[in-house]
Amino acid sequence: MRLTPEQARERLVAAPCLRLATVRPDGAPHLVPIVFAACGPDALVFAVDHKPKSTDRLQRLANIAANPRVSLLADEWSDDWAQLWWVRADGVAEETATADPRRGVALDALCARHPQYRVQPPAGPVVWIDVATWSGWSGAG
Amino acid sequence: MRLTPEQARERLVAAPCLRLATVRPDGAPHLVPIVFAACGPDALVFAVDHKPKSTDRLQRLANIAANPRVSLLADEWSDDWAQLWWVRADGVAEETATADPRRGVALDALCARHPQYRVQPPAGPVVWIDVATWSGWSGAG
Repeated sequence: MRLTPEQARERLVAAPCLRLATVRPDGAPHLVPIVFAACGPDALVFAVDHKPKSTDRLQRLANIAANPRVSLLADEWSDDWAQLWWVRADGVAEETATADPRRGVALDALCARHPQYRVQPPAGPVVWIDVATWSGWSGAG
Repeated sequence: MRLTPEQARERLVAAPCLRLATVRPDGAPHLVPIVFAACGPDALVFAVDHKPKSTDRLQRLANIAANPRVSLLADEWSDDWAQLWWVRADGVAEETATADPRRGVALDALCARHPQYRVQPPAGPVVWIDVATWSGWSGAG
């Protein structure tokens, strides 16, 4: 059954991580998992942190700069397919400028959620996502 | 550390499900989890099956028809961030025609991998993905 936006949001913000889809300038989709936090009812944030990255680590930022539309997914797998569910947030992302007050709000939310960030706060770019649509589906209802 | 293409493929094809990113005709990315199987060394397949779908169930097929480029991700979450890993397959997708011999090959692979499909084989469209790039990253090496 289709989940309500409220149900979808509740499950998505509780997920430990999300998969972020962006679109490359050449039109191909791009996918990476991200650590994130919710900021208020309709925003999600993530940062470039100290976790080692492969050499395409900034591809997600280049993509967002060229096309701000993003999609984020959380899902639960089960061998009992009646128990499967997924939730999705679709919206628009923006890398925050250094002086943008949202940068501090986002870093506070990320540090509040993740003990690892309280030890070593993210030092890199911070991305703010305004979510336009929360959706999802659950086999178990 | 960056995984080799061989390491990335090995982890990806062993994943229970993948997240499929496509691009909508309006340029926004689209994400759904999929049940899949590998066909030979460089192809992945999925089908529209009997699992109930939300009303956008064919969005992925409309997207592929307009823009065949796809990205597929598997990842493993851990509270110990040194244990995180992800693997990705990027390629080109095509919905197989009824007479396309790849349709039978794909259905055989899907039924061989998933007991649920042996009880009720997928009756809907079958998508064949030629993977151009296998990539990935692992904190634990």
